[in-house]
Amino acid sequence: MPTAQILTIGDELLSGDTVNTNLAHLGERCRRLGFEVVRAVSVRDRIPEIVAAVADVAVDLCLVSGGLGPTSDDLTAEAVALAAGVPLVRDAASEAAIAAVFAGFGRPMPDINRKQADLPAGCDVLPNPVGTAPGFAVGLPRGAYVVCMPGVPREMKKMMAEQVEPRLRRRFALPDIPRRVYRLIGRGESAVAVEVEPILAAARARSPGLAALYLHYRAATPQVLLILEGLAGEGGARATEEELRSFDAPFQAALRSSLYGIGEAELEARVLAACRQAGLTLATAESCTGGQVAARLTAVAGASDVFFGGVVAYANSVKTQVLGVSEDSLATHGAVSEPVAREMAEGARRALAADLAVAITGIAGPGGGTPEKPVGTVDFAVADTETCTHKRVQLWGDRALIQHTAGIVALKLVWDRLVARGLARVAELD
Amino acid sequence: MPTAQILTIGDELLSGDTVNTNLAHLGERCRRLGFEVVRAVSVRDRIPEIVAAVADVAVDLCLVSGGLGPTSDDLTAEAVALAAGVPLVRDAASEAAIAAVFAGFGRPMPDINRKQADLPAGCDVLPNPVGTAPGFAVGLPRGAYVVCMPGVPREMKKMMAEQVEPRLRRRFALPDIPRRVYRLIGRGESAVAVEVEPILAAARARSPGLAALYLHYRAATPQVLLILEGLAGEGGARATEEELRSFDAPFQAALRSSLYGIGEAELEARVLAACRQAGLTLATAESCTGGQVAARLTAVAGASDVFFGGVVAYANSVKTQVLGVSEDSLATHGAVSEPVAREMAEGARRALAADLAVAITGIAGPGGGTPEKPVGTVDFAVADTETCTHKRVQLWGDRALIQHTAGIVALKLVWDRLVARGLARVAELD
Repeated sequence: MPTAQILTIGDELLSGDTVNTNLAHLGERCRRLGFEVVRAVSVRDRIPEIVAAVADVAVDLCLVSGGLGPTSDDLTAEAVALAAGVPLVRDAASEAAIAAVFAGFGRPMPDINRKQADLPAGCDVLPNPVGTAPGFAVGLPRGAYVVCMPGVPREMKKMMAEQVEPRLRRRFALPDIPRRVYRLIGRGESAVAVEVEPILAAARARSPGLAALYLHYRAATPQVLLILEGLAGEGGARATEEELRSFDAPFQAALRSSLYGIGEAELEARVLAACRQAGLTLATAESCTGGQVAARLTAVAGASDVFFGGVVAYANSVKTQVLGVSEDSLATHGAVSEPVAREMAEGARRALAADLAVAITGIAGPGGGTPEKPVGTVDFAVADTETCTHKRVQLWGDRALIQHTAGIVALKLVWDRLVARGLARVAELD
Repeated sequence: MPTAQILTIGDELLSGDTVNTNLAHLGERCRRLGFEVVRAVSVRDRIPEIVAAVADVAVDLCLVSGGLGPTSDDLTAEAVALAAGVPLVRDAASEAAIAAVFAGFGRPMPDINRKQADLPAGCDVLPNPVGTAPGFAVGLPRGAYVVCMPGVPREMKKMMAEQVEPRLRRRFALPDIPRRVYRLIGRGESAVAVEVEPILAAARARSPGLAALYLHYRAATPQVLLILEGLAGEGGARATEEELRSFDAPFQAALRSSLYGIGEAELEARVLAACRQAGLTLATAESCTGGQVAARLTAVAGASDVFFGGVVAYANSVKTQVLGVSEDSLATHGAVSEPVAREMAEGARRALAADLAVAITGIAGPGGGTPEKPVGTVDFAVADTETCTHKRVQLWGDRALIQHTAGIVALKLVWDRLVARGLARVAELD
């Protein structure tokens, strides 16, 4: 398995001004291409530090992001040219492309931006259709294949997908790695492991490819992704797509309703797709989640044909006036209670004229907890034309985590209701 | 200025399974303590790689997070003991503390967790009141002061603040660094620089402390933070709190209404505090932002005395039925228009019985744009007892960025209205 280092460059990564999301993105892409990332380094915009980080490491690939801008502290091209032992040369095609970006805004190119076309002699230029900084790739003498991309995440991701990955596949003769993602809510990582590890252990005996199967858990409360990848074992054997698919049935049997989906589609997208397929419209009534469930749904492009909208009923007056929750229920049972959750869901269905509505009312904290209803107590209800289901869940964590978790649990309960009605399945979406 | 390296340990950081937020947090804390972070490294859970990363670098401080758990791939204590040339020794107090954590859950301590009390001989133990993994600090012979903390962000942050920072202040005799944050929305980073750089350049001549002033910009669309820090210059002079405060007036004059606040409090918290102070209640009416504005407000603990709630009016039927927007306005002007934004804001005020409401309707894309109203066109309105203001803004970026930016701009417009009524000021909150 070829090895890789990820080098991210920029003072802002070390001073805490920017969270290094490029590292996770490049790490994920490397793994899925079949590289083993052995080290990640972030250095400041200083030539000796960049040269040392590029030249100092025994890996096959060094992916670099950052330091390709027009200002005096953008030094990546100069440093990599030094490490490669070649001069910087102005690339006429890149210069023209940069000028074209400015022309698109109706502005002349500032002189300072010409520098962005100065690239190591003999490099492979990587065009940047969404920014001014071209990328480049160069093989170091007795060293790594170094690929430099802009630090702006949007530009880097596009260049990685469209320019870099095809080159890496060719240069390193990388095969496609079969992959299957199982998506779970309702069991912790170790509870999932207890169920799936025996199934996997039994399977590993069946073929050399299955023996080499790579399994990992990605936990993001309250969700766990179980990811299988067909990495190559001894002798190059790797699991086939069909072998991976053979886990669907035993995993479903073992994990039951906590396994809500297979494949890359996320919960929000699955809920919207199932509603669309069934011709159902959707609404939300949120108290403690404060709009997060609606925001999750509307983050999906094209949500508008299914999602009508929602009511953030933070104050009790909104619960009564907009959703029609009874004063009596609030007084008798409190805002965080089964009757109020049910009335919120039914009220949202009615007020927004939607087929299905989910309601969330709970105590996100830090204040407001009582011995009977401690911080983290959340009541959920899902109402549709047939019935209204309720569930109380005790969540833990700080305010932000409780709100986040409750928002995802709400969508899972909508999903469960769709499954119960035969309108949704865990199978992959097309 | 003492130097630091940040070392984050864990396979999940390199495989893309986890975004390395610990790096940014520790980078920020180091900078504010007065360390210059010169390098950040992430390595896998492998002893030789950890030893090399800890021992191989000429810095005064090496902050480490990760690898203190109970499983066989948690190897940080063993590796650091090797680098320090000391054995691992079981720490009785830590063992008792771990047992107490399990006792708190009413469960016996699994044997595997005893390992978390095995720490390098002679180290300074750092108690962990919110988890099972104690941290530790140890000085390497001819090397850095190495401080190891858990990888769980919540545990790491608490240990850093309560255990590590006081030790670092003592050990490195670190002075307090005066700091002042200016918060802006409505001007880009370079437009801010054009205004403030001359003011700063003139000030630098006034004292050696001001000459050494550290200025940086933290840009997170649509927001720019301008941060001044009194770092020590030649001879140790540093700007005083009072000298930093002297920039308030000239910055306000130069940056005008784009400068909405001074200090650490964020926009949401400022809006809520100003409303609370004025006795005003608040509501939202969101179309393209889909609940994000309400979610931002309710993320602030204690929002409920000011924020009544909101309506996510994604479908036109919700705009008419819940908010009372007229069919006529929708048909004549379209959902993204000044009249509809105004009617949404006024409708939210009425429906939720709030004093002040903000409405957002726009085209987040990727579909739905037209030549007259391209993707990114957003209409905002703010209604209160006196008037209803409107603003159209053209935003750029993908769907997620347009939704995010529109949500923050909406809060800024509420803030501007409060300022116009004399109910909010840019000054620091108490």
